[in-house]
Amino acid sequence: MTKQPDQPAAQQHIAADRQASLVARYGAAIPPAGPWNDHLSLLLSHRSVRAYAPDPLPAGTLETLVAAGQSAATSSNLQAWSVVAVTDPVKKAKLAEYAGGQKHIEQCPLFLIWIADLARNQRVGAEADVEMESAAYLETFLVAAIDAALAAQNAVIAAESLDLSTVYIGAMRNQPEAVAEMLGLPPATMAVFGLCVGYAAAGAEGQVKPRLPQSAVLFEERYGVADETQLRAAYDVEMGNFSRRQNMPVDSWSARVLERMGPIKSMKGRDRLKEIIRRLGFPLR
Amino acid sequence: MTKQPDQPAAQQHIAADRQASLVARYGAAIPPAGPWNDHLSLLLSHRSVRAYAPDPLPAGTLETLVAAGQSAATSSNLQAWSVVAVTDPVKKAKLAEYAGGQKHIEQCPLFLIWIADLARNQRVGAEADVEMESAAYLETFLVAAIDAALAAQNAVIAAESLDLSTVYIGAMRNQPEAVAEMLGLPPATMAVFGLCVGYAAAGAEGQVKPRLPQSAVLFEERYGVADETQLRAAYDVEMGNFSRRQNMPVDSWSARVLERMGPIKSMKGRDRLKEIIRRLGFPLR
Repeated sequence: MTKQPDQPAAQQHIAADRQASLVARYGAAIPPAGPWNDHLSLLLSHRSVRAYAPDPLPAGTLETLVAAGQSAATSSNLQAWSVVAVTDPVKKAKLAEYAGGQKHIEQCPLFLIWIADLARNQRVGAEADVEMESAAYLETFLVAAIDAALAAQNAVIAAESLDLSTVYIGAMRNQPEAVAEMLGLPPATMAVFGLCVGYAAAGAEGQVKPRLPQSAVLFEERYGVADETQLRAAYDVEMGNFSRRQNMPVDSWSARVLERMGPIKSMKGRDRLKEIIRRLGFPLR
Repeated sequence: MTKQPDQPAAQQHIAADRQASLVARYGAAIPPAGPWNDHLSLLLSHRSVRAYAPDPLPAGTLETLVAAGQSAATSSNLQAWSVVAVTDPVKKAKLAEYAGGQKHIEQCPLFLIWIADLARNQRVGAEADVEMESAAYLETFLVAAIDAALAAQNAVIAAESLDLSTVYIGAMRNQPEAVAEMLGLPPATMAVFGLCVGYAAAGAEGQVKPRLPQSAVLFEERYGVADETQLRAAYDVEMGNFSRRQNMPVDSWSARVLERMGPIKSMKGRDRLKEIIRRLGFPLR
């Protein structure tokens, strides 16, 4: 961006931030983004981190993160989620094992488990002697899972604003019954995912991972993209460059998608999730 | 908070912001939150807005919001979501109708429809002649829905940082097939929810809505709360105060939960969602 002599320094700073943020996220495929500010720079700077320093979190951090989480929208204000904060090293080691040996769950000082929770609202019903008919339906399970996701994402932004790092752990769905047992979860609750929170270990911050060009995911008025094959090829190049910068094995995005979504064995038991969710007390009608 | 003479002005400002943010969100049940900054004040200030001014958005706003959305974590980098931006007044009017007559969908200059999208990854498979076996499972639908939710929540924070307002529209799930038809959605995609984006109409900004006390939703090491009945009673009082401040009919949270989760008719047809999702090309095994 050319330096504009009549542009105030703060605006030049913001324009430079925007450019750097978009290049890091999109490589060559920079979208024509508009207004910018420090909040956007924070959002764009997200990296998932998988190695943590042992440093403890400042007092009150957990409550700050949950205040951010509770400030997210929630369907009909039902607040159909809960969060269990795990700091006990023995429990974290066990949870790391349930997740297929993810060491960062042991390392991070705070492991948050986000719960799709219809049980609290069912307790409201029980007290009033009203049957919560809707709790039996897939729709209502989905509401709870989405409520949990919106809250968790706010907590992630909050953590990153405090120079903390995070990584979501979908592998809490590998053995949800073992997790439920450990946490004492009642029927109609389920751990949807975990979240490691802590300070990144030295050198583990990583770089911003490129995403698909916007024109592959954003459509105007109707779904459909004419040149998807080209967009995907360009993205495979960006991901190759990213892997080289990170000294990681070069692997195209397309190859990774085939590996992760192709064979059932890549699901690590999550092909049985529907029956497990039912056993946890969500009939999923 | 007592003024500390040796505390720099910026820190006093932050402490005052924290206090005001927490009082607005929790009323009397203020949690012992820790570190604070402007990002946290933004997150805590969220309000869903249901009336919009006709003012257009600055150029590039849509791309800015989507850049924020794409910066959210996504399971295994599968990026199993898309977003359709609707600005056509005729389409918005129709979508408002599908959503049971929500006028704010017509009013807002930008309506974003967030799509759980396994079709893009299935196209990767089709090109490589690899069957995407996992796409048939509930787990993978859930991954796509959560990916969409994380991205959308980042877009919400981005919008609010630009003084825009938003409201999620879960009622996109009332008639998902009609929405799919309008947007030209291919099999294995589904509108999970909508999002109105625009400037709040004068007087429609509303106040921050209180949430349940933290001790009702945040648990340490194990799920379970001893005094839930009391916590709920305290929250019903806060919601009553909120309703009075907003000149809205006073309605307790417990009453609202009973109304929204009790009878099947409150689901507005979403009790049929499972069969509809299947018809949209997700077998939900």
